Amino acid sequence: MKAAPTIITRDMMDNVLGDANALIGAIERGFVAYSQGHVVVPPVGELLLPERNGEVHIKYGAVRGDWCYLVKIASGFYSNSALGLPSTDGLMLAFDQVTGALAAILLDDGYLTDVRTAIAGAIAAKHLAPSTVSAIGIVGTGAQARLQAHWLKHVTPCRHIHLWGRSGLATQTCAADLKADGFTVDIEAEANYVLAKSNLVVTTTPSELPLLTADALHAGLHITAMGSDGPHKQELDALILGAANRIVADSRSQCQERGEIAKAIAQGVITMADVAELGEVIIGTTPGRRSDNDITVADLTGVAVQDIEIAKAVMDGLGIVSTHI
Amino acid sequence: MKAAPTIITRDMMDNVLGDANALIGAIERGFVAYSQGHVVVPPVGELLLPERNGEVHIKYGAVRGDWCYLVKIASGFYSNSALGLPSTDGLMLAFDQVTGALAAILLDDGYLTDVRTAIAGAIAAKHLAPSTVSAIGIVGTGAQARLQAHWLKHVTPCRHIHLWGRSGLATQTCAADLKADGFTVDIEAEANYVLAKSNLVVTTTPSELPLLTADALHAGLHITAMGSDGPHKQELDALILGAANRIVADSRSQCQERGEIAKAIAQGVITMADVAELGEVIIGTTPGRRSDNDITVADLTGVAVQDIEIAKAVMDGLGIVSTHI
Repeated sequence: MKAAPTIITRDMMDNVLGDANALIGAIERGFVAYSQGHVVVPPVGELLLPERNGEVHIKYGAVRGDWCYLVKIASGFYSNSALGLPSTDGLMLAFDQVTGALAAILLDDGYLTDVRTAIAGAIAAKHLAPSTVSAIGIVGTGAQARLQAHWLKHVTPCRHIHLWGRSGLATQTCAADLKADGFTVDIEAEANYVLAKSNLVVTTTPSELPLLTADALHAGLHITAMGSDGPHKQELDALILGAANRIVADSRSQCQERGEIAKAIAQGVITMADVAELGEVIIGTTPGRRSDNDITVADLTGVAVQDIEIAKAVMDGLGIVSTHI
Repeated sequence: MKAAPTIITRDMMDNVLGDANALIGAIERGFVAYSQGHVVVPPVGELLLPERNGEVHIKYGAVRGDWCYLVKIASGFYSNSALGLPSTDGLMLAFDQVTGALAAILLDDGYLTDVRTAIAGAIAAKHLAPSTVSAIGIVGTGAQARLQAHWLKHVTPCRHIHLWGRSGLATQTCAADLKADGFTVDIEAEANYVLAKSNLVVTTTPSELPLLTADALHAGLHITAMGSDGPHKQELDALILGAANRIVADSRSQCQERGEIAKAIAQGVITMADVAELGEVIIGTTPGRRSDNDITVADLTGVAVQDIEIAKAVMDGLGIVSTHI
C-alpha cells in the first residue's frame, strides 16, 4: 500500500522552523554542497501567460545522496491586487529520491522562499560583514526588508537601522515594524545616506536603476544585494563592485546571467575571475573578508538548494524522512 | 481567505470519468487547439538521478483562455521492483489561470496519463481506421495493450483481437484480461501475423527494433504506434511509413525528434512534408484516410494538452472550475 503524501500547510511551518541557528547551518551546508558540485539543478522551467499578466517558474533539483528531491512552483500574477489577492504564490513538492514517491506537499504560499532568502542574507553577513557592525542599512521597505533585518539578529548584536524607501508612507510603516522587532530606526532622505552611515547594508528592492553609488563608499563595509534577481534589475552602481575587495555570488552561473555581477561585467568593470562563490567562502576554500577595512559585496539571486534545505528542515521537524522505510 | 486546494485521489477519478464519449470529445478538442496553436507547451523539464536509477519529467502547459494551467510530474525509478513498488508514478497540479492559485492536486499515480494515452489511440482509430474493422491487432501485452483495446470499444463494434507478445506467459495473461473485457482473442506466434490478419493495429511496446515489417502490409489498414515515444524507440520498419498513404503525428514538433517518424526521416524514407497532425485531421483542414484501401499510420508520442483535457474532465466532474469566483 502506497503511503499518502503529507500535506503541510503554512500554519504548521513556524513551529518546526523554530531553531534559527540550525536552519542557518542547514542552508550554509546547502551552499557548500552546491559550490562543491553535489547539487543537481536543471534549468528553471518557465510558463508565460502574458494575456493573464502572469508568469510561472518551476525550480527543481536534488542534493545527491539526500533522501528527497524537490520541485518548487512559484507564480506571479500581477493583476491579482485588483482582486484583493497577493501577486505571488508558491508551493513545494518533496519526493523520495529512492522510489520517486511523493512524500510531502508544502503549501507555503511562497513563505519558505521568503525565509530562505532572508537566511541567505544572514549567512552572507555572517561570513562577510566587518567584525563590529556599527549600524545596519536597509534599502527597500517590502517584506524582505523586514525579514532580512529579523534574520540579521542571529548573526550580529547590532540593533540600529538606517532605512530608506521610495515611498514615504511605506517607509514609515516598515520603520514601525522594525521597531516592533526590537530595532531603533533612522529614516534617511536618500539611499546613499544609508550607505554612508552603515557598515552592513542590505538592498531589497526590484529597482532597475542603481540606487547606491560609489561616492558614498567607505572602508569596512559589506553590502548584500538581494533584490536584483532578474536580468534587468540593478541596485548597485557597477563602480561599487569595481571598488570592492571581494565579490561573492550565491551562484556563479546565475550571477553571470542576472543581477549586479552581470551588470558590472557588461560594463567592463569586473570579470568573472573576480567573483567567488558563497559556498567556497563558507567552507574556507576561498577567503572572504581579509581585513576590517575591506569592502565586500554579496550578490544573491536565489539557488534551488536553499529551497531543498528549508523544505527538508520543515519535514525533519514534522518527522518526515522517507516514504519507503 | 485563500481557498485550500482540492486533493483528488485515484479512487475519486473513475466515477467522474464515466462518460467516455465526452472524454474522447474533450481530448479531440485539445488536439485541435494544439494544432491551431492555442496551447502553450514549454520544453519538458528533466531531472536525472542515474545513481538512483531514476528520472523525473515535468510537463506543463496551458490552453490559452482556459480557466486553468497544468503541471504534471512523472517519474520512473527502475529499481523499485526490488522494493515491490511500481516503477512509474505521477501526479498533476491544476492552477487557476487568472490568479495563479493552486486549485487541485490530482494524485493519480500516473493513471490519468495511461487513460489519456489510450484515448488518443481511440481518437486516431476513429479518424483513420477503415470504415469496417474486421479484426483488431494488438502488439504488446502491458497495461496499455489492455487500455487501448478497452477504449477502442467506443469507436468500433469489432470485438476480435489478434495478439502478440514477446513473453508467452504475459501474452496468456493479457489475452485472459482482454476476454474478460468482452473480446475474442487469437494469440499469434509472430508479430507480423497480427499485421496480416487485422486492419486496425495498435503497437504498445517499448521496442527499440522494428517488430512489424512492410512485407505483411495490405490495403485497407490503419496502424497506431503508441509505444515509440523516445528517441531510441521504434516499433515499425521505416518502409511501413514509406508505403503509407497518410502519416499522422500527434505533435509534428515532437515526432520530428522521437518515435517512428523521426526514424523514417533519418532513414530518408519520408520527409516532414509527408506528415499531417492529428488535430488537423480531426478538424478536417487536412484529409485523413481518402479510401478504404488506404494505408494510414498514426504516431503518438503524448502531448501535454491531453493531460490538460483529462485533468479538466476530472475537475469538471467534481465541480471544480476556478478558485477566484
